[in-house]
Amino acid sequence: MAKVRVHNFSVTLDGFGAGTGQRVEAPFGDGVEGLHDWMFSAMEDGATGVDAERVKQWDVNVGATIMGRNMFGPVRGEWEDESWKGWWGDNPPYHHDVFVLTHHARPSLPMEGGTTFHFTNEPVEKVLERAVEAAGGKDVVVAGGAATIQQYLRAGLIDELNLVVVPILAGAGERLFDNLEGASENYRVAEQVSSPSVTHVRLVRR
Amino acid sequence: MAKVRVHNFSVTLDGFGAGTGQRVEAPFGDGVEGLHDWMFSAMEDGATGVDAERVKQWDVNVGATIMGRNMFGPVRGEWEDESWKGWWGDNPPYHHDVFVLTHHARPSLPMEGGTTFHFTNEPVEKVLERAVEAAGGKDVVVAGGAATIQQYLRAGLIDELNLVVVPILAGAGERLFDNLEGASENYRVAEQVSSPSVTHVRLVRR
Repeated sequence: MAKVRVHNFSVTLDGFGAGTGQRVEAPFGDGVEGLHDWMFSAMEDGATGVDAERVKQWDVNVGATIMGRNMFGPVRGEWEDESWKGWWGDNPPYHHDVFVLTHHARPSLPMEGGTTFHFTNEPVEKVLERAVEAAGGKDVVVAGGAATIQQYLRAGLIDELNLVVVPILAGAGERLFDNLEGASENYRVAEQVSSPSVTHVRLVRR
Repeated sequence: MAKVRVHNFSVTLDGFGAGTGQRVEAPFGDGVEGLHDWMFSAMEDGATGVDAERVKQWDVNVGATIMGRNMFGPVRGEWEDESWKGWWGDNPPYHHDVFVLTHHARPSLPMEGGTTFHFTNEPVEKVLERAVEAAGGKDVVVAGGAATIQQYLRAGLIDELNLVVVPILAGAGERLFDNLEGASENYRVAEQVSSPSVTHVRLVRR
């Protein structure tokens, strides 16, 4: 059965998915340098081990993605124009429909390679419905950031969270496990496995 | 050289060192059931592996301990009498001077086996001076809870933190990495090693 899942979401040891001051030059903000180093290493040719195995799973059987606006770009408030087309270049690695949660409407943006960004301020439940339909039976990934994942956790709509705890300290920023209003009671840790670099933790619904 | 260290301090995956509602029947509060299961397993006769190795280090070369009042007992406010003698029975496992941070004075409490509890509302720097002197060249352990560790981190007085990340979710309680006012910038993760149960992380000063 198709799942709604979070995959390879990296948090610092002190629990932050992003630092402070997110901007073009620092998409994840300050204080989180190295947060995704494990991933880049794991994506290198010939990489093996648990990190490489996990990274490879990131797009397996995924038919649609949902993300917060900060994960699409650094622009805040109204779109001044439509020149910003995401962090991933002309051919983004999604190759399917990507729903971007934003209060600021904008026409859908088809990219090379099959990715289309849709911008929506509909309720998260409605966005998920659209994503499930777009996914055509495959899984839907809630990509991030933390605030977006929190919204879906509070709504009880996430089936599985694959987190990566990275041994760095951010000190400040956007915490993943925050603003959950008790929703974490509905989840348990089903698996924990470490590489020399990071710890992978899989949370599933109780 | 003698160190000031935190050892085997367990936090949940979402970063809590204790849950809500700490009381006699639940010294660590609600929502953290199982937080120390790894430790009890590791203390069993014949236990081996990284958890057992870490647990065994907890009192090696330690000459004095500092703890917050909640770690001494569930009593809040004024001591009604002096009948509460800590969570650990007549012969506590410390066997050295233990300094309990509290605003409410009380005479020092010598126990069997060499442990003496001292109650103090002096500044954390001063308490550490006394503990260092009492330790006679051995290490001083800051045992917890989270608020006490935070005070010593903010004061820049901790040399090394050995934390244990336990794959459970508390949802609420006392976070370790909170109220640090930038102090985490002064620390880096020097080592991370996992057992099948938990992840041990060692933080040291930069």
